[in-house]
Amino acid sequence: MAKSLLVTLLTDFGTQDPYVAAMKGTILSICPRAQIVDLCHGVPAHDILAGAFILTECAPTFPADTLHVVVVDPGVGTRRRILFGQFGAQQYLFPDNGIITLIAQRYPLRAMVTVRNVDFVPPEDVSATFHGRDLFAPVAAHLLRGLDFHQLGPQPQSYKLIEIPQSQMHGEALLGQVIYIDRFGNLVTNIPADMVHAQWPSLDRLRVSCTGRDIGAVQGTYGFAKEGELVALFNSMGLLEVAVNQGRACDELGARLGTEVRVVGPAAG
Amino acid sequence: MAKSLLVTLLTDFGTQDPYVAAMKGTILSICPRAQIVDLCHGVPAHDILAGAFILTECAPTFPADTLHVVVVDPGVGTRRRILFGQFGAQQYLFPDNGIITLIAQRYPLRAMVTVRNVDFVPPEDVSATFHGRDLFAPVAAHLLRGLDFHQLGPQPQSYKLIEIPQSQMHGEALLGQVIYIDRFGNLVTNIPADMVHAQWPSLDRLRVSCTGRDIGAVQGTYGFAKEGELVALFNSMGLLEVAVNQGRACDELGARLGTEVRVVGPAAG
Amino acid sequence: MAKSLLVTLLTDFGTQDPYVAAMKGTILSICPRAQIVDLCHGVPAHDILAGAFILTECAPTFPADTLHVVVVDPGVGTRRRILFGQFGAQQYLFPDNGIITLIAQRYPLRAMVTVRNVDFVPPEDVSATFHGRDLFAPVAAHLLRGLDFHQLGPQPQSYKLIEIPQSQMHGEALLGQVIYIDRFGNLVTNIPADMVHAQWPSLDRLRVSCTGRDIGAVQGTYGFAKEGELVALFNSMGLLEVAVNQGRACDELGARLGTEVRVVGPAAG
Repeated sequence: MAKSLLVTLLTDFGTQDPYVAAMKGTILSICPRAQIVDLCHGVPAHDILAGAFILTECAPTFPADTLHVVVVDPGVGTRRRILFGQFGAQQYLFPDNGIITLIAQRYPLRAMVTVRNVDFVPPEDVSATFHGRDLFAPVAAHLLRGLDFHQLGPQPQSYKLIEIPQSQMHGEALLGQVIYIDRFGNLVTNIPADMVHAQWPSLDRLRVSCTGRDIGAVQGTYGFAKEGELVALFNSMGLLEVAVNQGRACDELGARLGTEVRVVGPAAG
Repeated sequence: MAKSLLVTLLTDFGTQDPYVAAMKGTILSICPRAQIVDLCHGVPAHDILAGAFILTECAPTFPADTLHVVVVDPGVGTRRRILFGQFGAQQYLFPDNGIITLIAQRYPLRAMVTVRNVDFVPPEDVSATFHGRDLFAPVAAHLLRGLDFHQLGPQPQSYKLIEIPQSQMHGEALLGQVIYIDRFGNLVTNIPADMVHAQWPSLDRLRVSCTGRDIGAVQGTYGFAKEGELVALFNSMGLLEVAVNQGRACDELGARLGTEVRVVGPAAG
Repeated sequence: MAKSLLVTLLTDFGTQDPYVAAMKGTILSICPRAQIVDLCHGVPAHDILAGAFILTECAPTFPADTLHVVVVDPGVGTRRRILFGQFGAQQYLFPDNGIITLIAQRYPLRAMVTVRNVDFVPPEDVSATFHGRDLFAPVAAHLLRGLDFHQLGPQPQSYKLIEIPQSQMHGEALLGQVIYIDRFGNLVTNIPADMVHAQWPSLDRLRVSCTGRDIGAVQGTYGFAKEGELVALFNSMGLLEVAVNQGRACDELGARLGTEVRVVGPAAG
């Protein structure tokens, strides 16, 4: 049976250092036919929540059985475990620090093992500070070559999940917060479109606000606001987003991660 | 007949967000054999002119029939069209916002259609804010799989071109401006080498100046100036460039996009 | 005999400009089956020492016979030579400016030629400012297609090496310096673990210091310090590194390239 040779890398290594290439070289040395795709290496250093968010927004677009290697791993070299898990149609190799949380919330767990038996990695070759190169890469490459994941180790009794801030109703207002700011300065909130639709039958008279500024109703897309104007919309992730058409909402509003965003219905107008 | 499986991506998405990977995953899910190459994701946000410049400087180096997917698209989700065009030996999928202008000026148009019939994309799967993932990627992937582009839609009656600032003679001086500043701080101008050669038979006694500073004559390459010194040269794009050998001309001269650069012949010395 | 089709690119071009993609397009136009991997394009502009360091930390992880194309080349277009060399199991195409120094110190030289006969590159196609596209890329692509490197030119009589700052004992102290600062703000020094082990049988009572701050003994990994605390360790390159667990040592210590780092044994306590 042909296995997928597709493997992606998600790290907080950035692209200025030799770290990402060292992982790729290691994978290709073990599995020359591996097809490596960068998910993203710009996760803010040590930021598990941002890594979880990025992972869940792009990993599921890949073909079934793609192996996603996730190395946002401030605990490298300590006793934190490395896990292999199948969620939905995708496969993940990741440190047990909660970075799988959003995937685990959205996709059914099919199988999971703790990576323990790595007989193919000589212990003297494993540094304490770069498991991306010394453990994640060789384990991934051997999986691509056909290693049965059950050989890696036993099923864990549990795995770590982190708390993701949730939006909630507070009187007549739906209160959420900024959970991600992208390159464009767009403010992604934790307010799902589904929750807004369930609360209010019509979007027409909703008012979105942030840092005391009225953003107005929810629009269809950026270009429905004039250039430079604030706009609220449901983004491609199904989340409420506050943006400035061809501008930077984070600068315009002085908003940061955690900044409150509020949706108020017509009754509270 | 074997189609090319080579597809490139040029966006203003940066590399810190999940957007580029979501496009790649979508393409590979539809066309697993696609060979994806990044042209560049560092186009300044919403900057159509910079995108046009980058596109024209690298897309034509690719093998014939490569498909270049261009998503610098501030009008996403509005009524702006998505076009497919063949210019010279290359193929382009791009928003109709003028980003094809420099390609269109330099390479003959062989065919163009408006992307309208995308029966293979369920409408409910198309967000209003991320056509890179929801329209450009699947259309590109289906083209790679062999879809005849004529099936995408009708030939447009016209398409948008943007005004590109031109250099011109003003008395005895050739006046141009900085149209691109690269990572090294080099100032790329809109003064073509051809135009300088046509105007003056010899380069020896030309004087180049910028922000009131005399740069001297046109040299062969950066290293012909001393380290830290200003140098004017014709760059690899055939354009006049002002640089500092192992330094940053933009900082040294306080120059920005649009800053005037002047070439004066010996007669005006 | 099947040749490797694997080629990597290491440049100081950054990723915001069309330069890297122009190299890739040129390679693929000549050798469509080339498998191109980015080593790194974030080498600081013109920084040969940083380039040498990054190269030596990731190139050797690749499969045998991989061709590494190195374009950190402030002398482009001058009389500096382009060399092809085989060191250890890897192959390199690089400007003769010393960037191969660390590779040459660690891996045996098996063969080297000066790139001189490039009959397959029309001279009129070679700019003076972008040899990455106009010489390195086509030479690499022809090597991938099976060109015998002996055809490129004669063996050079010598090649350039740069001076790499060395750590040394000074009385009871081992003095080194910061030679690389990575994305995390970690301070990589030129103090090899081997040298420390040779000097002192036990690490327990060593004291590491930098900018007047006591870092303490050498630990196993980042996570052995509390979050936000300084930690010294031997990193994955076998070098002493000063870090802050989940923080930035360069900011915490005000350290820069060249900053002294000191190891003192128990006798000098």
